[in-house]
Amino acid sequence: MKVVCLSGGVGGAKLVAGLHDVLGAGELTVIGNVGDDLEVLGLHVSPDLDSVLYGLAGLNDTERGWGRAGETWQALESARAWGGEDWFMLGDRDLGLHLVRTQALRSGERLSEITERLVRTTGLATRLLPVTDDRVRTHVVTPAGRFAFQEWFVARRHEDEVDALLYEGAEDATPAPGVVEALESADTIVIAPSNPFVSIHPILAVPGITRAVEARRARSVAVSPLIGGKAVRGPLDRMMLRLLGGTSPAHVKRCYEGLLDVLVIDGADASATSDGHVVVTDTLMDDRDAARRLARTTLEAAMDGTS
Amino acid sequence: MKVVCLSGGVGGAKLVAGLHDVLGAGELTVIGNVGDDLEVLGLHVSPDLDSVLYGLAGLNDTERGWGRAGETWQALESARAWGGEDWFMLGDRDLGLHLVRTQALRSGERLSEITERLVRTTGLATRLLPVTDDRVRTHVVTPAGRFAFQEWFVARRHEDEVDALLYEGAEDATPAPGVVEALESADTIVIAPSNPFVSIHPILAVPGITRAVEARRARSVAVSPLIGGKAVRGPLDRMMLRLLGGTSPAHVKRCYEGLLDVLVIDGADASATSDGHVVVTDTLMDDRDAARRLARTTLEAAMDGTS
Repeated sequence: MKVVCLSGGVGGAKLVAGLHDVLGAGELTVIGNVGDDLEVLGLHVSPDLDSVLYGLAGLNDTERGWGRAGETWQALESARAWGGEDWFMLGDRDLGLHLVRTQALRSGERLSEITERLVRTTGLATRLLPVTDDRVRTHVVTPAGRFAFQEWFVARRHEDEVDALLYEGAEDATPAPGVVEALESADTIVIAPSNPFVSIHPILAVPGITRAVEARRARSVAVSPLIGGKAVRGPLDRMMLRLLGGTSPAHVKRCYEGLLDVLVIDGADASATSDGHVVVTDTLMDDRDAARRLARTTLEAAMDGTS
Repeated sequence: MKVVCLSGGVGGAKLVAGLHDVLGAGELTVIGNVGDDLEVLGLHVSPDLDSVLYGLAGLNDTERGWGRAGETWQALESARAWGGEDWFMLGDRDLGLHLVRTQALRSGERLSEITERLVRTTGLATRLLPVTDDRVRTHVVTPAGRFAFQEWFVARRHEDEVDALLYEGAEDATPAPGVVEALESADTIVIAPSNPFVSIHPILAVPGITRAVEARRARSVAVSPLIGGKAVRGPLDRMMLRLLGGTSPAHVKRCYEGLLDVLVIDGADASATSDGHVVVTDTLMDDRDAARRLARTTLEAAMDGTS
């Protein structure tokens, strides 16, 4: 069985870890978002790829909900004291990865090659691919102006309402080696419960990705990122209200028009839909067991289908 | 009173801190070695400038003898786990500075400008200048081949005997803004008790520096880096034996031919010389008080002179 999962950061990473656990070695390929990548303190940071990697390897901090467990912040405090930028939280352990990756990128290695190498050091059999080796950057258009994603999300604490999203560079980007092939040969395509606008759409915006999902021979299933119409964390519910006018399962489906065979939703949203193409389960992943349960249900939903 | 001190790393940094303490605000300018600078994990590291800066600001680890107090090593351990280079010890606090400096260098700022800015954040009135903004790299020629300084010193634990030293790039380097002016207007020039071959000669190798010291109107004094003919730390005694045939005060003087009015030596070396141009004192700086005492004696030796 070949499963491809399109994933953003934290929420997606939980389902990815669950899928990894319930699938056999080498059955899972993750295609990760790079739209919220950034340069900070001169380092290339790929927050979504890292969340997936940390989650897969069990290195993630489950209490804080992002970054690495056992993290310390000495380098960032030092950088701040020397006048460096300190708006983006980079822990010491996290920095070790950014240093290795940035050095490799500067020496000419491609992001997909480095990512493969990083995954290999953990001994995991799951593949993780950035959707592209090219530069794609998500920007948000707000009443206060246009901002690079992390500037809006972190520095401005995602307080501005979002009127539109732009995926700068996506049009000219090429899928990373293996991405389209993975989608074409997949038996199941899973869209993780990530924020569609800032995590999944920047993946789909790379030419060839949407086409490959539309032309799928695989069954395609998304897990809704909303529970009771609310985001587990982050600004998704506010964004959907403003951009789509609601947060029901139907609104989630509209994010993935033509790309889904079935949507997995939480019991708290069951009353908001009479759509036959949904599967209802408990979607809150508060530990890895819950992630495995949801992964199993999601794969079954894709196989059984209700459509 | 204007004092200029030529300094390498750890040993020099101690005397620099002492000079800073006993001189008035703005009276001290330090010209630092950049011959042992390196790129590691994609970061520009200037170990000698940093030792001076940390020493001046009281951030140095006095027990370990190098780097920062309260240091941790999480980023380096993480980088190692991800397959990164780990031969050069970079602590988390130390990294904060390297990140800020590397980012500034990549954005086009000059090393001397960044160094000035770093000193400014500490509120210190002492000036610290790299001898040049250009790339100078010390290489050692050994029976086992030629090595970049840090490769020999750290990776090969300075076990190879040294037959010659090369200061790659020095010939084409230009003194950093302010360096020659500081030497020309100095009342006293102090050569710190650093390793002449790897710390002071790469400073003097930049065209214009030796000339400025030779043409000095200032009195010039060096503090011998040897105590009882032995290096306090590092391979200097072995290097002097092989390169100069001895470790007496006369051999130290030969390192600075034409550049010295007086040499400060330790009591343990007094019997090895009958030279009138030496001042004998206790040169071991085991705490900052000792560094201040040695700084005072050194400045007095320059002013009184015995020549």
